[in-house]
Amino acid sequence: MTASPAPASPELVRREDDSGVVTLTLAQSRNRNALGLAMIDTLIVAFADIARDKAARVVVLAGEGPALSAGHDLREIQAHRNDPDRGQAFYELIMTRCATLMQAIVALPKPVIAAVEGVATAAGCQLVASCDLAIAGEAARFALPGVAIGLFCSSPLVAVGRAVSRKAAMEMALTGRLYAAAEAERMGLVNRVVPAGRALAEARALAADIAGRSAATLAIGKRAFNEQIEEPLSVAYALAAKAMVDNLAEADSSEGIAAFLEKRQPHWSA
Amino acid sequence: MTASPAPASPELVRREDDSGVVTLTLAQSRNRNALGLAMIDTLIVAFADIARDKAARVVVLAGEGPALSAGHDLREIQAHRNDPDRGQAFYELIMTRCATLMQAIVALPKPVIAAVEGVATAAGCQLVASCDLAIAGEAARFALPGVAIGLFCSSPLVAVGRAVSRKAAMEMALTGRLYAAAEAERMGLVNRVVPAGRALAEARALAADIAGRSAATLAIGKRAFNEQIEEPLSVAYALAAKAMVDNLAEADSSEGIAAFLEKRQPHWSA
Amino acid sequence: MTASPAPASPELVRREDDSGVVTLTLAQSRNRNALGLAMIDTLIVAFADIARDKAARVVVLAGEGPALSAGHDLREIQAHRNDPDRGQAFYELIMTRCATLMQAIVALPKPVIAAVEGVATAAGCQLVASCDLAIAGEAARFALPGVAIGLFCSSPLVAVGRAVSRKAAMEMALTGRLYAAAEAERMGLVNRVVPAGRALAEARALAADIAGRSAATLAIGKRAFNEQIEEPLSVAYALAAKAMVDNLAEADSSEGIAAFLEKRQPHWSA
Repeated sequence: MTASPAPASPELVRREDDSGVVTLTLAQSRNRNALGLAMIDTLIVAFADIARDKAARVVVLAGEGPALSAGHDLREIQAHRNDPDRGQAFYELIMTRCATLMQAIVALPKPVIAAVEGVATAAGCQLVASCDLAIAGEAARFALPGVAIGLFCSSPLVAVGRAVSRKAAMEMALTGRLYAAAEAERMGLVNRVVPAGRALAEARALAADIAGRSAATLAIGKRAFNEQIEEPLSVAYALAAKAMVDNLAEADSSEGIAAFLEKRQPHWSA
Repeated sequence: MTASPAPASPELVRREDDSGVVTLTLAQSRNRNALGLAMIDTLIVAFADIARDKAARVVVLAGEGPALSAGHDLREIQAHRNDPDRGQAFYELIMTRCATLMQAIVALPKPVIAAVEGVATAAGCQLVASCDLAIAGEAARFALPGVAIGLFCSSPLVAVGRAVSRKAAMEMALTGRLYAAAEAERMGLVNRVVPAGRALAEARALAADIAGRSAATLAIGKRAFNEQIEEPLSVAYALAAKAMVDNLAEADSSEGIAAFLEKRQPHWSA
Repeated sequence: MTASPAPASPELVRREDDSGVVTLTLAQSRNRNALGLAMIDTLIVAFADIARDKAARVVVLAGEGPALSAGHDLREIQAHRNDPDRGQAFYELIMTRCATLMQAIVALPKPVIAAVEGVATAAGCQLVASCDLAIAGEAARFALPGVAIGLFCSSPLVAVGRAVSRKAAMEMALTGRLYAAAEAERMGLVNRVVPAGRALAEARALAADIAGRSAATLAIGKRAFNEQIEEPLSVAYALAAKAMVDNLAEADSSEGIAAFLEKRQPHWSA
């Protein structure tokens, strides 16, 4: 499938910028922020814009209403069963696009922090797993419920299966049940649980801290991590050593080390 | 080695079927359900039978007596030292067969749940790690004790090392000590600890729930998980997207989504 | 880079041998045991010596003073910015050497146990992650603080990212904050927390236990684990089955199994 993403739709995703912290808020609460094709394409475009925007340093991903996201739009999926090909082309398109979105978060040269209140299920849970960090309000709930509707959460398990242990991942997908925020923290799906309603504020505070770091350093480091973690140890070390040498060639590392040795604050180049 | 497995031996493994839930019980408690060649071959045949049996939807693996399984049969192994080749051919045979059994559990297109009371050690612990899910009674104990007898638990670590963290896996194998059920749960080796004596009943209840799901969906999902989890992210997503599209082409996903949207129970095709 | 390591420098690393347990103590506390080039090369040589030394069975790695190690020597790194090539050659050299050291610990055919009091940061934290096991005093602290100085802990994340979950690893590297010993235990970075000041004694006691095992068995087992854990399941099982057969061809496995069956202590060949 080669159709291009539609332009970003501001009524689906709201973007707010504050001192280098971009908050992307899924804003279709009446639909529990379902990841229909328009929402997915809007997010892909939003992340592409952020990738190019030098003023954008860290992203917080949040959802309006009772769900971060409830996953794919089942009405949209079901409607395409009436296509001449019974939906085959659309299903290939949306699954490919959804995978593109998740990998765009991983590939974005800027940290992405999920702020979760309410539920994050199926592809919505995959969004959380795909972010670099995640903070959950204590009333947040997580699930891979596809098994209940005859559509196993195979794609969500790509991200969730890399965030949590294998038995925890399979338990989520085989039972389909809801997991409390505290369970998600124990499993490794989220980094921290905060009082209900505080996830966005805490995620933004963490983002603001990280936004004070060198952007070049963050970009090199995030990319190196995601590249090396998939490789055997010797290749991983070769990739990481190259990243360290590249990082040392950046002015920010010279300034940062100098500032540390001189016990002063560093001034980053960008 | 090419010798064929012997036919399933009912006195070694007992099979009981109840509404799609197959309970396989290792039934050689006088030998602590040792994984001698006959036991391994019996289990391989049992899983092959289950793979072909459309009425079998979920498997519970249990053991009679004080052990799920104490691992390889050391008397059998030691006896083969008197072979003309000092046991070389037999050792290759049994290690290959044991690996075949463990991979048959992973490849089985139906979920397998371990129900552990008593001890699960060495290849017995590997059985637990190889199952999709595991429930342990609180008196259950786990160990990789081979180091104490000069035979490191290298093969068990294939499965255990993928279920728990690396340092936990190496600690088990380097110390050889017994781990309590609660420790096994914290490490990720088992999903849940229940009161002593309740593991089988709880595993069957969980299995019955899962047996009420679409068999086609479970088969696609389990296979996709085990395929993608070993691949780099982009390949993993390509495999998973294909699994999702295949799953959407199954009648059960159409029925399951329709039932969900219509707020009724789904009726699976098989 | 092909320069050879310098000979081991006893004033940088102290070696003590006791009944097969080698304690290597980083002994440059005035420099917080920084991993400057001389320290790295000294450790590489020390591990190479231990690899060849049949009397050395298990290694404990410790640090003198308030730090196991604070990571790279920032003054040394900064000084090379004055090189004609702005440090490029030196940075390639030291990053390659550092990776060689970490992989030498993994490849050493003998278990290595980190004993951590005080702080282990950046490449010092990577040392801990690279060891087979780690014991921490309860006042020990861990961090990947490079982000604060514009030099992301990309290389430390190779080891840390394989010891802990992905979100925990990225949290360490993105925040740069200090983690308490108890947090490090929960994440899987250390195996056990003991009272402050007891890490070395406890690590040595554990090492003494393991030193009482068959050296041939430990060597086969450690190598098999590190080889198979990076491979897909079928390759992993083939490697592990071969390791088991090789292990069974060792006299120690015959003696160990015989001793177990005869309920007596084994006598290892070496």
